[in-house]
Amino acid sequence: MKKFLNSVDTVLTESLDGFVAAHSDILAIGDEHKFVRRKTLKPGKVALISGGGSGHGCLFIVKNYEGDVMNFDMAAEMSDGVLQVVTNDDVAVENSSYTTGRRGVAGTLVVEKIVGAAAEQGMPLPELKALGDRVNAATRSMGVALTSCTVPAAGRPTFDIGHNEMEFGVGIHGEPGRRRDDLKGADAIAEEICTAILGDLGDRAWGPALLFVNGFGGTPSMELYLMYNSARKIFEKRGVTVTRSLVGSYVTSLDMAGCSITLTMLEDETTALWDAPVHTAALRWGM
Amino acid sequence: MKKFLNSVDTVLTESLDGFVAAHSDILAIGDEHKFVRRKTLKPGKVALISGGGSGHGCLFIVKNYEGDVMNFDMAAEMSDGVLQVVTNDDVAVENSSYTTGRRGVAGTLVVEKIVGAAAEQGMPLPELKALGDRVNAATRSMGVALTSCTVPAAGRPTFDIGHNEMEFGVGIHGEPGRRRDDLKGADAIAEEICTAILGDLGDRAWGPALLFVNGFGGTPSMELYLMYNSARKIFEKRGVTVTRSLVGSYVTSLDMAGCSITLTMLEDETTALWDAPVHTAALRWGM
Repeated sequence: MKKFLNSVDTVLTESLDGFVAAHSDILAIGDEHKFVRRKTLKPGKVALISGGGSGHGCLFIVKNYEGDVMNFDMAAEMSDGVLQVVTNDDVAVENSSYTTGRRGVAGTLVVEKIVGAAAEQGMPLPELKALGDRVNAATRSMGVALTSCTVPAAGRPTFDIGHNEMEFGVGIHGEPGRRRDDLKGADAIAEEICTAILGDLGDRAWGPALLFVNGFGGTPSMELYLMYNSARKIFEKRGVTVTRSLVGSYVTSLDMAGCSITLTMLEDETTALWDAPVHTAALRWGM
Repeated sequence: MKKFLNSVDTVLTESLDGFVAAHSDILAIGDEHKFVRRKTLKPGKVALISGGGSGHGCLFIVKNYEGDVMNFDMAAEMSDGVLQVVTNDDVAVENSSYTTGRRGVAGTLVVEKIVGAAAEQGMPLPELKALGDRVNAATRSMGVALTSCTVPAAGRPTFDIGHNEMEFGVGIHGEPGRRRDDLKGADAIAEEICTAILGDLGDRAWGPALLFVNGFGGTPSMELYLMYNSARKIFEKRGVTVTRSLVGSYVTSLDMAGCSITLTMLEDETTALWDAPVHTAALRWGM
């Protein structure tokens, strides 16, 4: 295992410390390193919580993975005034190692950005829940892995994959996808993924959309932009107009080489919310 | 070679097409795919050119590599009203495969951002040249590689490196560094790099600074933030106050796993210019 770390026991703590120190203008770390939160909370606005923790008067945005859903269900039962959006944008497999139903993957970022902007503008909780469900329903993703990730505590790759193989539909924890294949050209890879996304969207796949090409952690921008180029051409030939774009490594699987393609069909309201000012560690514009 | 591409002959063209399409609000591509430029040029302001092309009334910012310097010298001779800043922030080696003197590496981004902000504010050409030289003189970098990059046209790794080895002081084209060593913990790696940077800065290594941890393309954010955490602690113990931070993969070597650490000692003027609004594909804040 070749990673920058001191000890597998402290890798998460030290990485979080660095993350919060590098973004100390906007972030604070919670007790016992259990969560990262906004440094300044705005009273009177709905809080969004993603991936851990619990609270009161808030909206959970949870990727559809059994452990996550179970923990957030328990947290919601212990609190009043909590609603949940469970994302399930991955078209690769219907059920998987860790889910009943589809997995929630990179499309979760799109839901979080759009619902986050609406919460910032003061939208009440029930409307935020409805908006989150609507964006999730307009979003589809699928990924492809060229290599496995290596979990620090395990010290070896999560799965074996040949030097000329790729795994279509891989999950963000390295769980199996829909099939193993020989490595193909970028256009052929994009063709399979985009066709799956468009087929699943059906009649909705027409008009303005956000195209998000997401790296898994070990793939450089040069290749992600090339995949974006391939995917965009395919979508635009089939009636989708790419009006918003995001390319980079945001929803990652440690050091896995690979990427996912996410398409979110946009309306005027969701376009405006996507464009609304944002200042997070990952996304920043308009402020 | 496991990369997302269609053909090694078209990889650059297709990647640039994707890059410009994804950032079509701010970027345009030049004839024959020879350069990428701002979509909207502002008359009356000095143009900065980095990495290729030539022009009139402009400032070239050139990393110190022999081929680059030679080409930009020729371009400057063919044009009037051109000045150059040659960056040479890499403390790893005094001369190298491709340079006489030190190499220009990730610190170039810091020079470009600060000089770019000053040009945007209308600073004249000679002052921009002096500012660029001053920021370069306040900047030191050193990198470490865990794996080689693979140039698409070559199809195999640029250099061989063992499963438990790292290369200290590697160049951004994969050229040899100062020494090969067994892989160490993050703190020990940061200690060697930060000590080299501080030793080279000498008496200047005191007070406010920008700490920039740069990934080479194949290393995920989690490890970069951990390295940032290690480096920050070392610098702060020795009299440097980290007042500005940047963590991410910006000055890359294709898919190489590894990172560099850059320290720029800041003054009030250069801090304000770093903070000035920027909207590029890589950096965006304040607008």
